Amino acid sequence: MAKCAFLGLGVMGYPMAGHLVKAGHEVTVYNRTAAKAEAWAAQHGGRTAATPRDAAEGVDFVMACVGNDDDLREIASGEEGALAGMADGAVFVDHTTVSALVTRELAEAAAGRGVAWIDAPVSGGQAGAENGQLVVMCGGPQDAYDRAEPVIAAYAKACRRLGDTGAGQLTKMVNQICIAGLVQGLSEGLHFAEKAGLDGRAVVEVIAGGAAGSWQMQNRHGTMLDDEFEHGFAVDWMRKDLGICLATADEVGASLPVTALVDQFYKDVQKMGGGRWDTSSLIQRLRSAG
Amino acid sequence: MAKCAFLGLGVMGYPMAGHLVKAGHEVTVYNRTAAKAEAWAAQHGGRTAATPRDAAEGVDFVMACVGNDDDLREIASGEEGALAGMADGAVFVDHTTVSALVTRELAEAAAGRGVAWIDAPVSGGQAGAENGQLVVMCGGPQDAYDRAEPVIAAYAKACRRLGDTGAGQLTKMVNQICIAGLVQGLSEGLHFAEKAGLDGRAVVEVIAGGAAGSWQMQNRHGTMLDDEFEHGFAVDWMRKDLGICLATADEVGASLPVTALVDQFYKDVQKMGGGRWDTSSLIQRLRSAG
Amino acid sequence: MAKCAFLGLGVMGYPMAGHLVKAGHEVTVYNRTAAKAEAWAAQHGGRTAATPRDAAEGVDFVMACVGNDDDLREIASGEEGALAGMADGAVFVDHTTVSALVTRELAEAAAGRGVAWIDAPVSGGQAGAENGQLVVMCGGPQDAYDRAEPVIAAYAKACRRLGDTGAGQLTKMVNQICIAGLVQGLSEGLHFAEKAGLDGRAVVEVIAGGAAGSWQMQNRHGTMLDDEFEHGFAVDWMRKDLGICLATADEVGASLPVTALVDQFYKDVQKMGGGRWDTSSLIQRLRSAG
Amino acid sequence: MAKCAFLGLGVMGYPMAGHLVKAGHEVTVYNRTAAKAEAWAAQHGGRTAATPRDAAEGVDFVMACVGNDDDLREIASGEEGALAGMADGAVFVDHTTVSALVTRELAEAAAGRGVAWIDAPVSGGQAGAENGQLVVMCGGPQDAYDRAEPVIAAYAKACRRLGDTGAGQLTKMVNQICIAGLVQGLSEGLHFAEKAGLDGRAVVEVIAGGAAGSWQMQNRHGTMLDDEFEHGFAVDWMRKDLGICLATADEVGASLPVTALVDQFYKDVQKMGGGRWDTSSLIQRLRSAG
Ligand SMILES: NC(=O)C1=CN([C@@H]2O[C@H](COP(=O)(O)OP(=O)(O)OC[C@H]3O[C@@H](n4cnc5c(N)ncnc54)[C@H](OP(=O)(O)O)[C@@H]3O)[C@@H](O)[C@H]2O)C=CC1
Ligand SMILES: NC(=O)C1=CN([C@@H]2O[C@H](COP(=O)(O)OP(=O)(O)OC[C@H]3O[C@@H](n4cnc5c(N)ncnc54)[C@H](OP(=O)(O)O)[C@@H]3O)[C@@H](O)[C@H]2O)C=CC1
Ligand SMILES: NC(=O)C1=CN([C@@H]2O[C@H](COP(=O)(O)OP(=O)(O)OC[C@H]3O[C@@H](n4cnc5c(N)ncnc54)[C@H](OP(=O)(O)O)[C@@H]3O)[C@@H](O)[C@H]2O)C=CC1
Repeated sequence: MAKCAFLGLGVMGYPMAGHLVKAGHEVTVYNRTAAKAEAWAAQHGGRTAATPRDAAEGVDFVMACVGNDDDLREIASGEEGALAGMADGAVFVDHTTVSALVTRELAEAAAGRGVAWIDAPVSGGQAGAENGQLVVMCGGPQDAYDRAEPVIAAYAKACRRLGDTGAGQLTKMVNQICIAGLVQGLSEGLHFAEKAGLDGRAVVEVIAGGAAGSWQMQNRHGTMLDDEFEHGFAVDWMRKDLGICLATADEVGASLPVTALVDQFYKDVQKMGGGRWDTSSLIQRLRSAG
Repeated sequence: MAKCAFLGLGVMGYPMAGHLVKAGHEVTVYNRTAAKAEAWAAQHGGRTAATPRDAAEGVDFVMACVGNDDDLREIASGEEGALAGMADGAVFVDHTTVSALVTRELAEAAAGRGVAWIDAPVSGGQAGAENGQLVVMCGGPQDAYDRAEPVIAAYAKACRRLGDTGAGQLTKMVNQICIAGLVQGLSEGLHFAEKAGLDGRAVVEVIAGGAAGSWQMQNRHGTMLDDEFEHGFAVDWMRKDLGICLATADEVGASLPVTALVDQFYKDVQKMGGGRWDTSSLIQRLRSAG
Repeated sequence: MAKCAFLGLGVMGYPMAGHLVKAGHEVTVYNRTAAKAEAWAAQHGGRTAATPRDAAEGVDFVMACVGNDDDLREIASGEEGALAGMADGAVFVDHTTVSALVTRELAEAAAGRGVAWIDAPVSGGQAGAENGQLVVMCGGPQDAYDRAEPVIAAYAKACRRLGDTGAGQLTKMVNQICIAGLVQGLSEGLHFAEKAGLDGRAVVEVIAGGAAGSWQMQNRHGTMLDDEFEHGFAVDWMRKDLGICLATADEVGASLPVTALVDQFYKDVQKMGGGRWDTSSLIQRLRSAG
Repeated sequence: MAKCAFLGLGVMGYPMAGHLVKAGHEVTVYNRTAAKAEAWAAQHGGRTAATPRDAAEGVDFVMACVGNDDDLREIASGEEGALAGMADGAVFVDHTTVSALVTRELAEAAAGRGVAWIDAPVSGGQAGAENGQLVVMCGGPQDAYDRAEPVIAAYAKACRRLGDTGAGQLTKMVNQICIAGLVQGLSEGLHFAEKAGLDGRAVVEVIAGGAAGSWQMQNRHGTMLDDEFEHGFAVDWMRKDLGICLATADEVGASLPVTALVDQFYKDVQKMGGGRWDTSSLIQRLRSAG
């Protein structure tokens, strides 16, 4: 069993850290808002720390799941950051969805202290975190990955190393790029169905098994048709992720015309008040014109 | 068992008509290019007719699977068209993907002769036609549909009536609209993966089960990564279908921004020589800039 | 001075026909709604005819300015159409914005009767028609053009032959394609200015003379900033024209991604109730999300 | 006459600094690559300085025209930056096109030292800089602007204050946003003309005076039709500017769908090797498919 620190007890991190305890690991948590850390410790029986650095001292693995690039820099670097407390040979496993840029930057800083960095963004959403059924996409040194994998297994249904530092984040970007076009296509399809007077659920029953089928069609058509978006993966997060995708696409030289367009459409959704709605809310802006 | 005529023995119609024979129906075929009809009759043992009208005389059901609106008008109307030969009470089952407009026009003409019209476009592609595993989306009068369904069953894994005349075609349009955005999203995702130096197959293995997953990702990523497009559903057909979708979207008042954009991107593929390539060839135009 | 018939006394045709009289030509008018023809004759002193054919009999030139392809077919062909009445050697000058397809079709029909067809769509709008300051873009045989030009001059500030049959319509399409992207760009620019808290009029004063400058910026920014769209060239007409552009672009093999996208955006404007608004109303859909 | 420092002697800055001398001002220049500063001094007779700070000491105005946000931070802040050398009451006039963010950040730092910051991006290109005919869009305190304007006049045909700090940069962004859609529209129009077999120059002669007309059409159609792009405002610069526009649009809540799309199209041009081509090279990617 391993000694772990978990930094960031949000929607995702809170249950993930809980699964580590259930799997028998010794867990110290840190959260910016201390009350959440207290609540977590009360529920799961682990320890809390006052700073990322305190949490990181003496552990084998530091897991993090905070918000964005800046948040990650804040908890990882600096005097009170986790890296300052980590022992030589320890591994930092970052579950935040961030840029490949900050990943390379922090991985290098970590290496300078003898710490291995595994970028390990996840998919599966809140439900996946709660059920311990996340998909974890990793990048980083093979040996550190091999040591981390059995620990990550506590909350993963699948965990895979896709390459060196950054490969996990890049894989997550592929995921988000695919979703952008797909959800817009699905929204246009269902919007057309509504306008044409079809029964959207019946249509989906017929076509979902074929070439137009997708996870989104299967799992989101009902709520889309019912105007229910208070669930799932928030538009604000999606825009953060697409911002990362578009910036990285410039670095690697990939043109993403529809991704860039749909990113603007998601801004429309934000302006309609839908920043916290599920990504499937793209259909709402099609409906808004009448 | 029923007496059937089958008009149009192309990639789809040839095997579909064959399944009717195997199911025990009595089948007369007509094809513009007579040689194909002869070959079919030699293989399946049915009869051939010189005109759609001849084929249609005395049968219970006329099935058609030709190319587009004009083709359908040609074989259905006019002096040598099928409607001219059909008996009162017979049913015309149209498997061609055409507009809701021509469907309403011909359904009305049919009704004037006591013939019921079922619009019944299919999905499942060449493989589905050959294995008798098509999905059939129908519109038209309930009673005529009820009579036709057991016959259509010869080549269908699923058959469903979605509403009145045109509902089948409209459902097929939803299908194609969803595919356009989805395939462009997938193309951008895989193109990004390539440019970022990732192993595209490994990436798909990790993400295909999640929120980015789709039939297209599962069934097309390998050939997309391998630059293989000599298979599947042709770009030329897709553009015909998207043209129908966009025209109908104007009628019903649905805005389809990404569908319209991707339709132009498919034109790029045609200009690159890819008119007969599979729809997944959208990735080629992203690659073409370098 | 020439004998002329003018068919279609709408926003454009009414004043155009008036200019012919002022220039000394002998003019017979036809309009579907006879009352408008009566009013015109009362005002300008020309004659009215009951059918296009009647109007066309014995004249040197038939001018037409009706709505779309179907309207043009209706007044030009058939038993009561103008071509049936025109004398050998007469010229049909079509000022309607229509497809190159219908133009070729009718030009051929005209040629069969010894009539020359000049396609001659215009720009300059209602004001241009009223002031006799239209720009006229022509296609057709040189000799017929040479005869028509001095007559067209009655309402033109510029008239030019761009090539054979259809070249006028194709030139008008270039015009509309350029406008679509330009007006969307202008709308995004002014919308950004508003959101950024800038004084839009001051911004335009500074930039209108430079690389971002355009007729639309100069002539439309004020009404755009003031939410005034009850003037100018209607969105419904623009969508008719863009439909022609997109169909023709398929024929000639030109990809028009932004034109296709903006056409969908104009549909949003129609759905917002703006079918009769000026084309500059694209900015309204940007504002509608908030 | 004023004492000025000019930082950044590139395509724009070199001739701008020259005009200051011609107008009678006393000018010290600084350039990262010292050789250019030497050449300038040899030509114009001003002084050179080894660091931005040295150049800035004792002057009334510091003008800067460097590359991007990072470049500006480098010459303005830090120990050897210009702000460190500027006297209380001096004015920093920034002609670089940068973000509103860096502008606010540096304006605040300047204010802390008693220095006024005027953001003053320009349009008019290399020719405008050389002829002293730039358009200058300014933001910042009124009194500082009033002092700077007569000096800026040395190279401006128009100079205007649009509001407080950042208003100049925001105005420049409006300019670039308008250009993106406009040039894509123009490219689609000319590409269509080519494919339709029209004489592009003749078409432009006819339509340039009307509703489709623009500076770009007037000044760029010839080179666009001739495949000449080795001039003008480079695609690489445009992408930097559009990146600023898109980031700022997120801040202010403006959706820019076509700007975002065209930005990706410009990436295609970069990938085709056109990073240094004029912005009108968008037409090349339409041509590249065939
Ligand atoms: N939600 C989802 O469905 C999915 C999310 N993700 C990604 O996972 C990450 C986390 O998402 P989620 O859990 O939903 O987010 P939440 O906002 O619920 O949680 C974020 C956590 O990070 C902490 N945090 C943020 N910034 C800082 C900082 N500067 N210093 C210290 N702590 C900080 C927050 O602390 P505090 O409590 O004080 O606010 C909070 O505990 C994101 O990158 C997201 O994109 C990935 C897949 C799915
Ligand atoms: N291929 C696919 O994967 C799928 C196709 N479809 C749709 O099914 C329809 C048929 O496709 P497919 O079989 O691939 O097409 P093919 O081109 O292979 O076959 C078309 C058939 O129609 C006949 N035909 C066409 N025009 C006429 C006409 N004017 N008069 C008489 N006969 C005519 C052709 O005759 P001839 O032999 O003389 O050319 C041919 O037999 C299309 O609408 C397509 O969109 C739907 C789902 C999947
Ligand atoms: N308005 C503008 O600013 C510009 C318009 N155009 C183009 O000019 C054309 C005319 O525009 P505009 O004058 O504004 O249109 P209007 O709708 O004002 O006028 C159309 C005229 O055509 C007649 N008409 C329409 N259909 C038929 C038919 N089937 N049979 C007989 N007559 C018919 C109408 O008759 P009735 O009176 O009975 O309705 C009416 O007189 C259009 O193609 C438009 O795109 C070009 C440039 C600018």
